[in-house]
Amino acid sequence: MSNAKVLPLLEPDIVPCCPPLNERPLTADEAVRTAAMFKALSDPVRLRLFSAVASHEGGEACVCDISDVGVSQPTVSHHLKKLKEAGLLTSERRGTWVYYRVEPSVLAGMSKVLGQYAA
Amino acid sequence: MSNAKVLPLLEPDIVPCCPPLNERPLTADEAVRTAAMFKALSDPVRLRLFSAVASHEGGEACVCDISDVGVSQPTVSHHLKKLKEAGLLTSERRGTWVYYRVEPSVLAGMSKVLGQYAA
Repeated sequence: MSNAKVLPLLEPDIVPCCPPLNERPLTADEAVRTAAMFKALSDPVRLRLFSAVASHEGGEACVCDISDVGVSQPTVSHHLKKLKEAGLLTSERRGTWVYYRVEPSVLAGMSKVLGQYAA
Repeated sequence: MSNAKVLPLLEPDIVPCCPPLNERPLTADEAVRTAAMFKALSDPVRLRLFSAVASHEGGEACVCDISDVGVSQPTVSHHLKKLKEAGLLTSERRGTWVYYRVEPSVLAGMSKVLGQYAA
């Protein structure tokens, strides 16, 4: 396995899809995709874990770096997997540990959906 | 982002509370409040209704304006109430109908939470 860092190509189904919420009513399909991203961040523990990864040095962290949110390591792993499935994190195994990294393009898309409200 | 910008005074219970997700790990309390806002937008039907209100003429709409998302009017009312409870919409009764309006400050706060990822 190569140690060279290569950013994965995004699958089309996790690319942020949708216009700002006040541009026009979302279609049913757009709403399903956008809601899924919001849902991934709608659990307080998952959100804390996400911010722990996002704010960790280098924008990535392994389970071994995240131990202060008051839940067990299996629970941490479960939530990180959910965030990965939602396309908000990518992961890479290095030796013993799986490292998680935020997926900036997906978050940029979510920000854009809310963006026309920015003060 | 300028520090000189004076932020508007908002009601404490709807003030977007939290720093960008990659600034530092959220505290438990911050995570609860931020997750609640994401949760309000994590249901596809609710998200469609929200975008229908947000994109309606004048940024406001009543139940009578929203009839094309494939759910009954009581269901529409239920979701609009949830969005109001989350602080994402405000409402005002005028005659027969209750009009809903987006709460821009809350969405600006959510956008800020995701903002440092903007492309």
